[in-house]
Amino acid sequence: MSIEFTDDSPGLTDVAGFRVGAASCDIRNKANGRLDLALVVADRPCSAAGVFTTNDVKAAPVRFCQRLLAAGGQVRGIVGNSGNANACTSVQGDADAAETARLAAAALGAKDGAFLVCSTGRIGELLPMAKVAAGVSEAAGRLSRDAAEGRRAAEAILTSDTRPKTCTARFTHAGRTVTVSGIAKGAGMIEPNMATMLAFVCTDAEASADFLKEALRSASDASFNCVSVDGDMSTNDTVLLLASGASGVRVGPDGDPSATALFREALGRVCFALAEKIVGDGEKITKVVSVEIEGARSRADAEKIARAIGNSLLVKSSWFGEDPNWGRLADAAGYARTGLDEARLDIHYGDVPAVLAGRPVPENKPRWKEVVKAARFSVRLNLRLGDGKFRLLASDLTDGYVNYNKSE
Amino acid sequence: MSIEFTDDSPGLTDVAGFRVGAASCDIRNKANGRLDLALVVADRPCSAAGVFTTNDVKAAPVRFCQRLLAAGGQVRGIVGNSGNANACTSVQGDADAAETARLAAAALGAKDGAFLVCSTGRIGELLPMAKVAAGVSEAAGRLSRDAAEGRRAAEAILTSDTRPKTCTARFTHAGRTVTVSGIAKGAGMIEPNMATMLAFVCTDAEASADFLKEALRSASDASFNCVSVDGDMSTNDTVLLLASGASGVRVGPDGDPSATALFREALGRVCFALAEKIVGDGEKITKVVSVEIEGARSRADAEKIARAIGNSLLVKSSWFGEDPNWGRLADAAGYARTGLDEARLDIHYGDVPAVLAGRPVPENKPRWKEVVKAARFSVRLNLRLGDGKFRLLASDLTDGYVNYNKSE
Repeated sequence: MSIEFTDDSPGLTDVAGFRVGAASCDIRNKANGRLDLALVVADRPCSAAGVFTTNDVKAAPVRFCQRLLAAGGQVRGIVGNSGNANACTSVQGDADAAETARLAAAALGAKDGAFLVCSTGRIGELLPMAKVAAGVSEAAGRLSRDAAEGRRAAEAILTSDTRPKTCTARFTHAGRTVTVSGIAKGAGMIEPNMATMLAFVCTDAEASADFLKEALRSASDASFNCVSVDGDMSTNDTVLLLASGASGVRVGPDGDPSATALFREALGRVCFALAEKIVGDGEKITKVVSVEIEGARSRADAEKIARAIGNSLLVKSSWFGEDPNWGRLADAAGYARTGLDEARLDIHYGDVPAVLAGRPVPENKPRWKEVVKAARFSVRLNLRLGDGKFRLLASDLTDGYVNYNKSE
Repeated sequence: MSIEFTDDSPGLTDVAGFRVGAASCDIRNKANGRLDLALVVADRPCSAAGVFTTNDVKAAPVRFCQRLLAAGGQVRGIVGNSGNANACTSVQGDADAAETARLAAAALGAKDGAFLVCSTGRIGELLPMAKVAAGVSEAAGRLSRDAAEGRRAAEAILTSDTRPKTCTARFTHAGRTVTVSGIAKGAGMIEPNMATMLAFVCTDAEASADFLKEALRSASDASFNCVSVDGDMSTNDTVLLLASGASGVRVGPDGDPSATALFREALGRVCFALAEKIVGDGEKITKVVSVEIEGARSRADAEKIARAIGNSLLVKSSWFGEDPNWGRLADAAGYARTGLDEARLDIHYGDVPAVLAGRPVPENKPRWKEVVKAARFSVRLNLRLGDGKFRLLASDLTDGYVNYNKSE
């Protein structure tokens, strides 16, 4: 009984009970033929849950999804678009999100047409609704379980990402196969409590909306909420989980405990893999660094230190330069102001000690320098004050990031 | 009765009761002849106060100064060096800071030789004490009130700064002139609760150490604590204020109220001017942006929003690109999570509205674009929720910053 994990899978078309379609409707107004609208449709109304940005400024589709899920957690599918975030668009934005959902329902001739809506892209411009209508119609016409269409959907939600992000986890319970599959987009604005990120996860497990919500929150806390690219949290961050029930395997408090444990594990694997892909494809990054804090008085203290390090411009610049500047790590750890004691602090690059009990180990410098040359490495701080731990996946900061983001 | 302010003054040699000397002792080990040690000496023991980094990781000289000032606040002067921060140097660092103070006292043949010590530069390496000793000796031999030596001292404390930072404020009380003069260094690691910054302020007013401490704290809160270059707070941030009393004008609770008010004003002007110079000379910056938040529920909320904006990589990158991306301002304001209401939010570039009550004013776009082309401009957010205000001076983020900091 274990999880079978497939990286870079076709994505949501792996999951029984769902069909997927993607379209190119030029939401960016660049006439470049890029895919920019994805439609995910359950064969019948299904349980759903979401985790959303905690930004005070929430985009219209976030508000729309939160209202829809508060009303009961039964939905028919998702419409997602890239190119325009429908954020800071006031009441017209709310109307446009609702209209997008209505268009999806109408395209399917559905009466029970509760569609979740997600948008990502530029802030502060109204959605071009005629184009969205054309895109929904085109995507509805392509709905299928073909792997190729699954891959197109994963592509349609991308913005500045360089590659689609998909994965699938499967397990078997009592002779039945349960599938959990996800697609995501990330790239910039990636930080606490998510990112400018969308992730859509579908499963053919059968579960209540309440259980899905709790399981998704838990999986997100251990994945999407432990990554940082630039410390900016977006207005549109959304993770959605839909459960068709097509496998016939019930999970949750009213399901089988061992199936439920496997489901949580599969969901965790999918969310973590998607989160890792998001960091690894951060805008113009060259390094993924695992910032591992242990020995803090609490997990909250460890998280503060990890985020201070992972978001420090000086630390991130030094990673870009492959300069093992442990002084900047100590400095950032200190300004997290958790009450660390410099005289107890250990700092390692990978397994190589750079500082032990507050004293530099300069003879190891040639070995640290090797560690930071890798595209992925870890920095580890042990505060020796308690047993609080936190791990943050962070990226470097490059001149390419600045030049990429200096204008839109 | 008003303040006479001189920008780019000779600095501390403007102040009666102090002599200044600078030396080149190759602390950086680059044999480039650069000035790197400054000595400030009061003619006799004088009152002093300091404000220091709140980083958990404090450099040895910070700990040394805090102990010295806690012991009573009477000092003979300051030794400041650049090139090495004497931070993360454990007990040897403490011993070296104490030895630096002892060397200064010995060079003057002083018995009452309580010297404050400040260091800035690379973290994690021991001070080269033989060089420091030579530098102290050389600087002691040059002690004078010549303007040229004052300018050399302002130069000696610089690190990646491109220019010295000095200013002088004077006022007259009962026929006597009181002078307040300061020098500073900044450049990187500039954020809350100061910066990798050192500022030395001297005055010939007469005052108790307790009054100096309160006045300096208040002036620092309104100046050094309202600037941000990169959001990194250093291990060495120090602002020192020494009062020789040579003017014969007493200020403070035991002094004349109108002289005290003028003194506070002069000190505030000096600290604010030095803070502005620090931001304006941030590492490889091209813009200084005044982030002005008003209408928050409290000053603390306004400060959170100002810092979220002033430290956002996406916002700072867009400033570099002269892209008036108000969506990123709204996003950052939202993730400060003060409970702002998007539907009330006004955003202005200078005096030009970009968003009013949550609705974009796109017809003004050509005018915003003009505003952000200037080297200095303001962005103003009004939350319309209360009367909390905060103003932060921030800089842009450039590819030059990243490349400058990618290795040391």
